[in-house]
Amino acid sequence: MEEMGLFDAMYNCRAMRRLDTKPVPEDMLIKLVDAANQAPSGSNLQNGRWLIVRDATVKAELAALNRAGVEGYLAPQMDNIEPLSHQSVDRRRKMMDAVLWQVEHMHEIPALIIACMELGTKRDPMVLGRAGGSIWPGVQNLLLAARAMGLGAAPTTLALIDQDAVAKVLHLPETMGAICLIPVGYPLGRFGPVTRKPVEEILRFDTWS
Amino acid sequence: MEEMGLFDAMYNCRAMRRLDTKPVPEDMLIKLVDAANQAPSGSNLQNGRWLIVRDATVKAELAALNRAGVEGYLAPQMDNIEPLSHQSVDRRRKMMDAVLWQVEHMHEIPALIIACMELGTKRDPMVLGRAGGSIWPGVQNLLLAARAMGLGAAPTTLALIDQDAVAKVLHLPETMGAICLIPVGYPLGRFGPVTRKPVEEILRFDTWS
Repeated sequence: MEEMGLFDAMYNCRAMRRLDTKPVPEDMLIKLVDAANQAPSGSNLQNGRWLIVRDATVKAELAALNRAGVEGYLAPQMDNIEPLSHQSVDRRRKMMDAVLWQVEHMHEIPALIIACMELGTKRDPMVLGRAGGSIWPGVQNLLLAARAMGLGAAPTTLALIDQDAVAKVLHLPETMGAICLIPVGYPLGRFGPVTRKPVEEILRFDTWS
Repeated sequence: MEEMGLFDAMYNCRAMRRLDTKPVPEDMLIKLVDAANQAPSGSNLQNGRWLIVRDATVKAELAALNRAGVEGYLAPQMDNIEPLSHQSVDRRRKMMDAVLWQVEHMHEIPALIIACMELGTKRDPMVLGRAGGSIWPGVQNLLLAARAMGLGAAPTTLALIDQDAVAKVLHLPETMGAICLIPVGYPLGRFGPVTRKPVEEILRFDTWS
């Protein structure tokens, strides 16, 4: 199989939330994490840690945490969706519908990959916040790799708001934090280009104002 | 020019810190930011903002902030470098030498790209911390794009520790934060594969322990 081009992957890496129940071969899941593991980390400490969750009980517990997170955050917005300059109300509702689809189906998705960090100190919100630069680049590598391998994926943090509950479900030591959950499977929808603001709106030279 | 393969870029994306003074064409710099802008953001808010700094005065001011950040963080470690399981003292010293090279040369590097965020609220350390998931994926896109285009780059946060000073230099409104600085130029060194812990050390199935 010819390798997908870098820019082709980046410009066509839609969040894919509706996923088939068909299992994903283990070597493909490991390849995703291996790709994530190539990303840089602060001071090259390489403190990213990754979990591939396929066990039905653990998935069900994570699905319950995701439901609580989504109902707390998203549900209150559903009755009064605000349009954004770059996304209409209709488009925004479609995105939220896909998030709600995942609430009902997360336990059936073949693999939930959790991006964690060895924090080197007891986890607390401040430490978790500062950790971002050493783990999110790996998440992006994983998403791009999934795209290139024909797998659907999309990152979420809503399932991980209650860090104590997450740590209990995943048996994390108190120095490990869970930063991002990425459900992975074969997509039910179609791949396509991402839609982003034009670069003129998000780029300036030398100073902002 | 044939496009670089995705995995080829990810596995050969070394931090390139020693950079030539040769200017980088503006269209290449914009292409880097456009690639960064394709990455996902929380709730698709697309609140990443990017600055390309080439002005000599602004670069000199950022170089001074970088010097202060490096001298506060790195210099105390230089006399007693601790080896890591994945990086010898010699290798670690080489990495730090490259960071110190940048302290002396940052003002001469053709472009300093700053990954910023429109935070939607007044910036403070907690807000900046939570913002990571919406900007670091874009930083990774930018680094991969630079690699594919033959440009050297490496992210640093040490120049941005004093957010008030950074905001003053870059004329940021009080709702914008600067998350990461990426010096970009043609590399003086050679590209090569990254060295990472084996995947077995950073991956587990279902639960961590």
